[in-house]
Amino acid sequence: MTSGRSGADGILIASGSWDPEPWAAEVRAALPGRPVWIWPDLADPTAVRYLLAWHPPEEALAALPGLDAVFSLGAGVEHILSRDNLPDVPVARIISDDLTSRMVEWITLQVLLHHRQQRRYDRLQRERRWHELPQPVAGEVRVGVMGMGVIGAAAAVMLARLGFEVAGWSRTPKMVEGIEGFHGAAGLDPFLARTDILVVVLPLTPETHGLLAMPLFRKLARGGALGGPVLVNAGRGCLQVEADIARAIEEGVLIGASLDVFETEPLDPASPLWGLDDVVVTPHCAGWCDPRELVRQIAGQIEAYEAGRPLRNVVDRAARY
Amino acid sequence: MTSGRSGADGILIASGSWDPEPWAAEVRAALPGRPVWIWPDLADPTAVRYLLAWHPPEEALAALPGLDAVFSLGAGVEHILSRDNLPDVPVARIISDDLTSRMVEWITLQVLLHHRQQRRYDRLQRERRWHELPQPVAGEVRVGVMGMGVIGAAAAVMLARLGFEVAGWSRTPKMVEGIEGFHGAAGLDPFLARTDILVVVLPLTPETHGLLAMPLFRKLARGGALGGPVLVNAGRGCLQVEADIARAIEEGVLIGASLDVFETEPLDPASPLWGLDDVVVTPHCAGWCDPRELVRQIAGQIEAYEAGRPLRNVVDRAARY
Repeated sequence: MTSGRSGADGILIASGSWDPEPWAAEVRAALPGRPVWIWPDLADPTAVRYLLAWHPPEEALAALPGLDAVFSLGAGVEHILSRDNLPDVPVARIISDDLTSRMVEWITLQVLLHHRQQRRYDRLQRERRWHELPQPVAGEVRVGVMGMGVIGAAAAVMLARLGFEVAGWSRTPKMVEGIEGFHGAAGLDPFLARTDILVVVLPLTPETHGLLAMPLFRKLARGGALGGPVLVNAGRGCLQVEADIARAIEEGVLIGASLDVFETEPLDPASPLWGLDDVVVTPHCAGWCDPRELVRQIAGQIEAYEAGRPLRNVVDRAARY
Repeated sequence: MTSGRSGADGILIASGSWDPEPWAAEVRAALPGRPVWIWPDLADPTAVRYLLAWHPPEEALAALPGLDAVFSLGAGVEHILSRDNLPDVPVARIISDDLTSRMVEWITLQVLLHHRQQRRYDRLQRERRWHELPQPVAGEVRVGVMGMGVIGAAAAVMLARLGFEVAGWSRTPKMVEGIEGFHGAAGLDPFLARTDILVVVLPLTPETHGLLAMPLFRKLARGGALGGPVLVNAGRGCLQVEADIARAIEEGVLIGASLDVFETEPLDPASPLWGLDDVVVTPHCAGWCDPRELVRQIAGQIEAYEAGRPLRNVVDRAARY
């Protein structure tokens, strides 16, 4: 077996929020014969070549002289890049068909749920009232996807297939067939002005932190086919200002929202978001990761890397995603 | 203007359940200069060449000697074919892109809603509980579409794009790319045995009346990725036995259902279906028809017919759809 710069070939799993045991079991099965530790149970820090991390404690990043790469256990990396003592090695994200499918399922469900006024029909059902609501067809409703990476582009294509008028916004220009493209600071206001349902799958960076707030909500389309704009956030909780979302719903600046992510998770039971009938709250379940599937991908990356091929899905540290 | 067999060129609109006025206004706009009557306000029955009907009263079908064709104001025709005094003229159904899109939206929403356990998450939200449920990916869930006409095939293709394992059943063989096909009486049990989410868009005929009942529910897949089977009926209410659906939910034979149609509409406020948390009740809104769009199609049919071209979407009276 090829060994790292210092002869290390071990794997360290460090998670500050998930139970690491199932991940360790999958890693041992996928890469048999290789030392696998769960932080902080680490006999020899010099033997660690790869770090698999999800919200890793700062201490887990200290003193790993043989480290060749860090793998995030999800699509996001802000929980790794935010660590001051992150070693200067490549950081790779998960881009998996399984994760993409799950995210597209959740996003498609939430967009259709607001489009087809399901929460209003749920209320009518509880009241045992038979009452049909005026209903536009998807082609009359404009969806805007913020963040046109693999997940955003896949969601945009699916929503376009359902008939929605779909546009995408991204920091840098992205071309996706059938999807109108907007980009950069100059493209943001025109993108928002034509958007009835805003779907957010942006990475969390210093530029996107707190972006989903009242000033942005006020720039969304007024008086579209749904009667007002809807927010669907499947990205990161710290993209949003939750007090502004609650106020926007109450003031009619937004007519609905679906939120899978929150500023602090789990969401505080005292948050007003739980109690808003037109806000769907789910517990960061949109992109549930199957450890087996994701570890298979990371193991494939390690094997390819050790065979001399480059790592894929490496983060651009300047862009922070 | 070409005139009919007896010189008639008038249009009669007869609806026993919808307000016919908006339809008449659209017909007058689409076919200007032609007499348009709303039953029973009919000066001269011999002047009627076309009948536009939705649950037409029997009396409306009597004594129309100049009648050339009947147009259903929707996709279904059982409300016309069931009339004993239906004249021996072609009966044409609506097949419209608008209607198909709307049906596919509603079906896709309901399948995703059960697949992603939205009603359970709704309960958790009401309890302000942050709790993630185990979640299969679409590829682990088998959807079966009963009725592979234009709407069923479009829904099947959309669900397959979302990753579901999709099969279709129809009375006669239908080939749809990427969709496993079952047909006829012999194909029904194997189709049901591999189905976790049953989507029904069958026409109502003597053969399909009351088909969605306990014996059929018991043939659906047991213990699939969702823990049990789900029924989604967007076809006709009389396909189903509602007492059996309620009992199947209570006994766990079904774990959920979405029903847009009912044996008697509006659904009785006393029906137990309203109160079942895992049953979504909507008021026959899946395929809401835009009168303008549908009248445009019927007017196009009339103009083509009078120019000597054959009527499209004509019902097979033997098959009854």
